[in-house]
Amino acid sequence: MGSTGEYESQRRVPVPPSKPFLKSLQARLKETFFPDDPFRQFKNLPISNKFLLGLQYFVPIIEWAPRYTFDFFKADLIAGITVASLAVPQGISYASLASIPPILGLYSSFVPPLLYAMLGDSRDLAVGTVAVASLLISSMLGKEVSPTENPKQYVQLVFTATFFAGVFQASLGILRLGFIVDFLSHATIVGFMGGAATIVCFQQLKGILGLVHFTHETDLVSVMRSVFSQIHQWRWESAVLGCCFLFFLLLTRYFSKRKAAFFWINAMAPLTTVILGSLLVYLTHAEKHGVQVIGHLKKGLNPPSASDLAFGSPHLMAAIKTGIVIGIIGLAEGIAVGRTFAMFKNYHIDGNKEMIAFGMMNIAGSCTSCYLTAGPFSRTAVNFNAGSRSAVSNIVMATAVMFTLLFLTPLFHYTPLVVLSSIIIAAMLGLLDYEAAIHLWKIDKFDFFICLGAYLGVVLGSVEIGLIISVSIITVSLLRIILFVARPRTMVLGNIPNSGIYRSMDQYQIANSVPGILILQIDAPVFFANAIYLRERISRWIYEEEDGLKSAGEASLHYVILDLSAVGSIDTSGISMLEELMKNVHRKGLQLVLANPQSEVMKKLDKSKLIDKIGQGWIFLTVGEAVSACNCMLHTCKSIHVAVDQNAEENKV
Amino acid sequence: MGSTGEYESQRRVPVPPSKPFLKSLQARLKETFFPDDPFRQFKNLPISNKFLLGLQYFVPIIEWAPRYTFDFFKADLIAGITVASLAVPQGISYASLASIPPILGLYSSFVPPLLYAMLGDSRDLAVGTVAVASLLISSMLGKEVSPTENPKQYVQLVFTATFFAGVFQASLGILRLGFIVDFLSHATIVGFMGGAATIVCFQQLKGILGLVHFTHETDLVSVMRSVFSQIHQWRWESAVLGCCFLFFLLLTRYFSKRKAAFFWINAMAPLTTVILGSLLVYLTHAEKHGVQVIGHLKKGLNPPSASDLAFGSPHLMAAIKTGIVIGIIGLAEGIAVGRTFAMFKNYHIDGNKEMIAFGMMNIAGSCTSCYLTAGPFSRTAVNFNAGSRSAVSNIVMATAVMFTLLFLTPLFHYTPLVVLSSIIIAAMLGLLDYEAAIHLWKIDKFDFFICLGAYLGVVLGSVEIGLIISVSIITVSLLRIILFVARPRTMVLGNIPNSGIYRSMDQYQIANSVPGILILQIDAPVFFANAIYLRERISRWIYEEEDGLKSAGEASLHYVILDLSAVGSIDTSGISMLEELMKNVHRKGLQLVLANPQSEVMKKLDKSKLIDKIGQGWIFLTVGEAVSACNCMLHTCKSIHVAVDQNAEENKV
Repeated sequence: MGSTGEYESQRRVPVPPSKPFLKSLQARLKETFFPDDPFRQFKNLPISNKFLLGLQYFVPIIEWAPRYTFDFFKADLIAGITVASLAVPQGISYASLASIPPILGLYSSFVPPLLYAMLGDSRDLAVGTVAVASLLISSMLGKEVSPTENPKQYVQLVFTATFFAGVFQASLGILRLGFIVDFLSHATIVGFMGGAATIVCFQQLKGILGLVHFTHETDLVSVMRSVFSQIHQWRWESAVLGCCFLFFLLLTRYFSKRKAAFFWINAMAPLTTVILGSLLVYLTHAEKHGVQVIGHLKKGLNPPSASDLAFGSPHLMAAIKTGIVIGIIGLAEGIAVGRTFAMFKNYHIDGNKEMIAFGMMNIAGSCTSCYLTAGPFSRTAVNFNAGSRSAVSNIVMATAVMFTLLFLTPLFHYTPLVVLSSIIIAAMLGLLDYEAAIHLWKIDKFDFFICLGAYLGVVLGSVEIGLIISVSIITVSLLRIILFVARPRTMVLGNIPNSGIYRSMDQYQIANSVPGILILQIDAPVFFANAIYLRERISRWIYEEEDGLKSAGEASLHYVILDLSAVGSIDTSGISMLEELMKNVHRKGLQLVLANPQSEVMKKLDKSKLIDKIGQGWIFLTVGEAVSACNCMLHTCKSIHVAVDQNAEENKV
Repeated sequence: MGSTGEYESQRRVPVPPSKPFLKSLQARLKETFFPDDPFRQFKNLPISNKFLLGLQYFVPIIEWAPRYTFDFFKADLIAGITVASLAVPQGISYASLASIPPILGLYSSFVPPLLYAMLGDSRDLAVGTVAVASLLISSMLGKEVSPTENPKQYVQLVFTATFFAGVFQASLGILRLGFIVDFLSHATIVGFMGGAATIVCFQQLKGILGLVHFTHETDLVSVMRSVFSQIHQWRWESAVLGCCFLFFLLLTRYFSKRKAAFFWINAMAPLTTVILGSLLVYLTHAEKHGVQVIGHLKKGLNPPSASDLAFGSPHLMAAIKTGIVIGIIGLAEGIAVGRTFAMFKNYHIDGNKEMIAFGMMNIAGSCTSCYLTAGPFSRTAVNFNAGSRSAVSNIVMATAVMFTLLFLTPLFHYTPLVVLSSIIIAAMLGLLDYEAAIHLWKIDKFDFFICLGAYLGVVLGSVEIGLIISVSIITVSLLRIILFVARPRTMVLGNIPNSGIYRSMDQYQIANSVPGILILQIDAPVFFANAIYLRERISRWIYEEEDGLKSAGEASLHYVILDLSAVGSIDTSGISMLEELMKNVHRKGLQLVLANPQSEVMKKLDKSKLIDKIGQGWIFLTVGEAVSACNCMLHTCKSIHVAVDQNAEENKV
């Protein structure tokens, strides 16, 4: 290393200045809970400005409203009306999934979008009810109170669950625990959602076939048994109508995917089927020939429902449980959708703040006769494609729904249930993401089986069993991570010919080992759960290397270089491990050399004084430099090597 | 990059050949459960040899006995007798800690060491009873059955717990779950052991002060209240005797630490105090003046106790629980001690096999009137320092104890209990590892508070509360690891002047950023729990960098280089994240470049076809090479850059 002193000192791995405990704790907590540093902009401002900024932070509409232009409004108007044409039939359909009166689905498309427009970050999210949460409500609460026998109590329970979902969502956001949603792995969600979509589709056979009695179970076997046990009850009128509408809906989607110009047809298709279906029934009096219709819908806006929240109910625990489950499922979809579209338009969404917005929206919703709302993908995609520019499209949609509630509800009297069923099936088929499943199979079989497990759990068991399987899978996946960290890989590195680069000899066939030097790379943070394993594993590497050299009659081992590039952090057990390893290596007459330790590791090495025991001169910036230093020692200054383990520091200087 | 074609192809990051799913699953499971590959030596051997090797594997004595020499035996004889002189008084003392008859302590130093000598891997471990497990037995089982009112049933319960401890230990070993023991973090163990030692010391005030009635609670407050509520019962004769012996024991230890020559005095000290104490009592008839003595000890070897195992007892669950707790504590100490001394002598211990040996020893012990045995540190250290060469020293010790059982038990009739108390206190003070606590404070405040929590839990609550606190701490620590992995650091790298090395600009003040290029390093495996966070965080880095450059009026950003050196693995969510990130980067007109992906990452990139979307030419071996390629593009071939994101692969070739 024939280099100048200045160069030498530049090349030292610096020890970061030590921070007081409380300060480093604060920094650590901040990076965990406030990784996006939302209060950055508040620094060094007078209190009045801070207040305004804070208000803008929690109510973003104050921030962007002044910049809103007429051009934006034109775009939002078109998008809002388009979404409303989807929201009205979808709202009615999903309400029937949740076993609640259809009018509640319309109510839920009025108040929550207004609130979200004020509190939400996303410019593209279209708020509305979601199919899977609706299904979960009827399957989890339907067990407690029968929606047919005790409709009033059931609806109260639904409002209560919605309230708790909102409280749960808002608390997650306020406590900055948004990352919990990130733990829902993609594979699990694909499986669970696909399973839910499948059983929803099969349940629609009730509507399509015009059946009156139907099983309350959701699993495939019960549903099929229920369908085929009453073949004589099948209504061909209903079935024909349903199949026609379904065909129409799927056809429009197919074409809209081929050609962007057909987008509007697709967006308007559900409303078109509703209008066509209603007209058909009205003209043919089909309601008297076995085609069930929605019937009377009350005119008027959302009645208040705060007094309906059943906090004293004996089913309170079920309501809380349901609230938490649907709350988190709503968040998972809503935030993922929001972030996806935000990325298209290159703006940022604060997940925790978004949770607070969702929570507020559902708390307010539960007091105004709405049930759980979130940001469904289908509706948001329509909003985005229709050219929405801001959350004003939600306001337009809410206004359109309000108009419907005030004046148009009688028009839905003749809407046949079979139309709702075909709308639901068409939407659900879009949730069956078989392409994602194939993708999983190709990339990672493990993830595929996780996905399949969640899917089969929902389809063959029940939504709850599917949920339990999904949660267990996620827990096991996290344990797998722990196991991965508890059993980190140690790789032997070799030299890439004609370069100073050292890479894993497993990965790079061309890499050559360096005589007399063993280079090991540790692949994970070193901490109590893997310290002992690593000590044993590294000792075995050294042992095997010595053994191999001996039996091959080659030159013996002199240096062990540990590449710490990938060791992001180390705890006291890890430091003890390094110290024992060093003693062990020295006892064998070898020298331990460290390459590229990160700042966290350097800090701990320094505080524990281990840095002096190893010798600062044995810590290098790169593996390449470490190897050249060792080679110099080995070949030109061999006499020094003998004394090296007594006092590493001195020899180096 | 003016290099030849051959050089180019050498420098490509290779895609590892794909393995069938079952094969890679097998390899993964093997590295998790058989990281030490114990069956390596069995490959390609005839069955008869395999059988012999297998026998040698499970009963190591068959392997080393033929090589055993007389020189070894001389050393082992001296070591064995030295350990026996410690084992006899310690055995009697610890039995009183477990509230069982003293003779059981002697029995426990006879059968288990013999078994360990045959099955165990360690050449230095001295088998015997351990103080903390004894305390746990009396505190956990004493609540179920009173040892004073119902001694027979209590002892049966102790044997049953020992049996289950053995079964649990052996199963852990057979199921290759040895790594669970590694999860007991050093900080927690220091705290828990220190707490247990503290309360054991205070409990000995009963013996030292010659008290007859005493609290069954273990917490400090109850013990002190019990001591001071009966001041009038204190026996000064006992107290004086106790203090003298304690002083003697501590003095010998102090000197033995200063000077190695005093080692023998320290090793023999407990036996000396027993002999001196017994003589004193015998000569002065002190037993009639308030000094309690052991009394009659039955002559003869261990009676069988298999029929005493109380599987039908109503307290079976308590016995199983106690067995699991003492089993794991015995393992934790025994295996750590074995490995530590193995490292001194440079041989390897198979943790899982060691667990089977411990388990067998305790199962056999529970059938021969022994209670839980493990490998206590103090006894093993004496064995090691007395020069033991192999497990034969355990056989010698067992023989010496057998001799004691057969002929010498009457001699212990007059041994005063106060001597046992001082032996226990002297041993326990050695467990109070305050230096380790100070070390923790210096290196990692977090670990120190963990240690303190476990300590205070034991001292102020109870052993069980301490255990619960310790287990919770460990769970929280593991969650912290998950959190660490869920919130990996992303660091901006800069160029170290006069080199091609790129390092974190936070850590290296001298590192300079490269104009037009943002280099980010990801610090952990990328998987579902951190994929979304990483996508957001990296997007924010890019956004902030562009913002900063714009406001500074500098040249805009052209390339984003991701250094993947520390990304040991990636799952499907991670791959999706990279794909979305790529699209996002391309949408901004930038180019995504990868540096040094590991084989696991390359495999997934290849399978998901993402490698072609990014362009194989944009994947480099080092950050340095990536930067020079980007610089070349930026400065000499600018025209190409515009088309680059359409088809990266073509442009590179």
